[in-house]
Amino acid sequence: MNVKNELKVQALEWTGDSLKVLDQRALPEEIIYDEYTDAVGVAESIVTMRVRGAPAIGIAAAYGVALSVMTHYSSSEANWKDNVLKDIKQLANSRPTAVNLFWALEKMQQLLNNHTGDPTDLIKQSAIKIHQEDIQANQTMGELGADLLGTKPTVMTHCNAGALATGGYGTALGVIRSMYKRGVNKIYAGETRPWLQGARLTVWELAQDNIPATLIADSAAAWLMKSGQLDWIIVGADRIAANGDVANKIGTYSLAVLAKEHGVKMMVVAPVSTIDFAMESGEGIEIEQRHQNELLADCYINNNSKVSAWNPVFDVTPASLITAIVTEKGVVHHPADNGVKHLQ
Amino acid sequence: MNVKNELKVQALEWTGDSLKVLDQRALPEEIIYDEYTDAVGVAESIVTMRVRGAPAIGIAAAYGVALSVMTHYSSSEANWKDNVLKDIKQLANSRPTAVNLFWALEKMQQLLNNHTGDPTDLIKQSAIKIHQEDIQANQTMGELGADLLGTKPTVMTHCNAGALATGGYGTALGVIRSMYKRGVNKIYAGETRPWLQGARLTVWELAQDNIPATLIADSAAAWLMKSGQLDWIIVGADRIAANGDVANKIGTYSLAVLAKEHGVKMMVVAPVSTIDFAMESGEGIEIEQRHQNELLADCYINNNSKVSAWNPVFDVTPASLITAIVTEKGVVHHPADNGVKHLQ
Repeated sequence: MNVKNELKVQALEWTGDSLKVLDQRALPEEIIYDEYTDAVGVAESIVTMRVRGAPAIGIAAAYGVALSVMTHYSSSEANWKDNVLKDIKQLANSRPTAVNLFWALEKMQQLLNNHTGDPTDLIKQSAIKIHQEDIQANQTMGELGADLLGTKPTVMTHCNAGALATGGYGTALGVIRSMYKRGVNKIYAGETRPWLQGARLTVWELAQDNIPATLIADSAAAWLMKSGQLDWIIVGADRIAANGDVANKIGTYSLAVLAKEHGVKMMVVAPVSTIDFAMESGEGIEIEQRHQNELLADCYINNNSKVSAWNPVFDVTPASLITAIVTEKGVVHHPADNGVKHLQ
Repeated sequence: MNVKNELKVQALEWTGDSLKVLDQRALPEEIIYDEYTDAVGVAESIVTMRVRGAPAIGIAAAYGVALSVMTHYSSSEANWKDNVLKDIKQLANSRPTAVNLFWALEKMQQLLNNHTGDPTDLIKQSAIKIHQEDIQANQTMGELGADLLGTKPTVMTHCNAGALATGGYGTALGVIRSMYKRGVNKIYAGETRPWLQGARLTVWELAQDNIPATLIADSAAAWLMKSGQLDWIIVGADRIAANGDVANKIGTYSLAVLAKEHGVKMMVVAPVSTIDFAMESGEGIEIEQRHQNELLADCYINNNSKVSAWNPVFDVTPASLITAIVTEKGVVHHPADNGVKHLQ
């Protein structure tokens, strides 16, 4: 069974024996696939941000567990499960904020716990199923989100919540893809410093599908909103708390505050696997701090440097600033009212 | 007469026969001075952004007029004045938003109009005086601004309104320099895409004076404000309208909206030469649009590209979002109340 994905862009490709990972650090200049045959390699591909985006990280981790079982399982080997558990731990330590990672790993581990005999086939098929279902969820969300947008809207997105960040099609970009088929005025993408996911990935991915997009500096978004021409901001999510607070790429909170101030609507698009039902509010979500070198020029990096950087790569947007959260199980309007617990 | 400037960083250096311009495009990696002996060269240095920052552009233009007079004046040459006027026109066309440019050119032209005989010395000395007075104004503003800040504040600045953007000392960074001597908690600088004035110039300039600073992505400012630890945002200005509206680097408006939302105060520091008394409100200010290549990767720049960019490099912050405008003639608190007309 192969994962059906007719898009030109694929972040992850399962061969049956290995996981091919598109190295997103090299985009848009080069298209390089790295091939992994064990979980340690997959964990490394997440740590190094070859693969990024909450749903894609979850799917990669599931394939990582499949590769781990394929590597370690042997009926004669008594401690293969310990080795797999070690791999799962390493995958879990790859990045802290996106909850889809932990969701996928827990799902795979439960399957392992409940299974007797050779688990290889079950685990492989389950990873493929997670991938396949993510694409289906994206397509469902794409249509549900597009339903909210009205006629010929002007929209803006932040970071990359596209095919590159998911199993395929995308969450925020899934909505934009579905919207594009129905008619759109204009699509803006924020550059998304420091990693430039918007500049390197989002506009590139849309261009692959012949969808025109206009790039702006992140700090130009408010000035764009002031022009009165922006209708919606559409973003993905790395983790959603039970009360509807949303952790997403740094700058999302900024856009949400500015959107409210300018009468622009704010849509978050994410599969239910992004919801951390155990997390009451966004205050508890761990925000990854990445290395200051992502912001600093080389000449600032030495022991006597007076220049440092503060580099949180996510922020938390309170539910009160969000117009709608779109999931594959339906749309939650005004999530501040009752949160998203009912989607469990 | 030489301009007294004890700072290590100098954007402009007048030799008596030529203007040395620090090429700010090469910072922080390299310190390169280009030397100009005519006005066309100086205009080119403004167009190419070797020199930038509203006050520094004005000073460079004044020196440009001096070089023009030195090149063209000759008692035997009847049309020297026409040639100087042509140079002034070229200098005026170098950049559209900063009003200090037009202010300095008008000042020089008036001197020329009112003078008989060899104008060389007068014009040279007048350019030096504009430069000298800008530094003095910066130092005055530095103290006036620091007076507003309270004890050990945490501040953030945007773009570079420092020694590099002025005759020396700086407007926003002048306040930060004066504040630093009195005691400060922490200084943040936004990167300031697309040209990275914050990352390349501001933190570098402060480090030259042994002042520690912390760089953040522009879109992280709101998240920093949410932490409750930021007291003031301090910025320069490229043009201030009579009603107190302020045109400044793109992203300033965004910071001002976010500051108001988070109870952070907003200070604009600029010499009176930045005020366009003829401009009633910010709505009339021309906002420079720079080339989309400043945002786009090379691979997007071709005739069939689906990817474009929108690159306004300034925005307008309404007076209502500004806590105080600091000039060398005094502080205007709550400029929305009565504007800044009385400073004329």
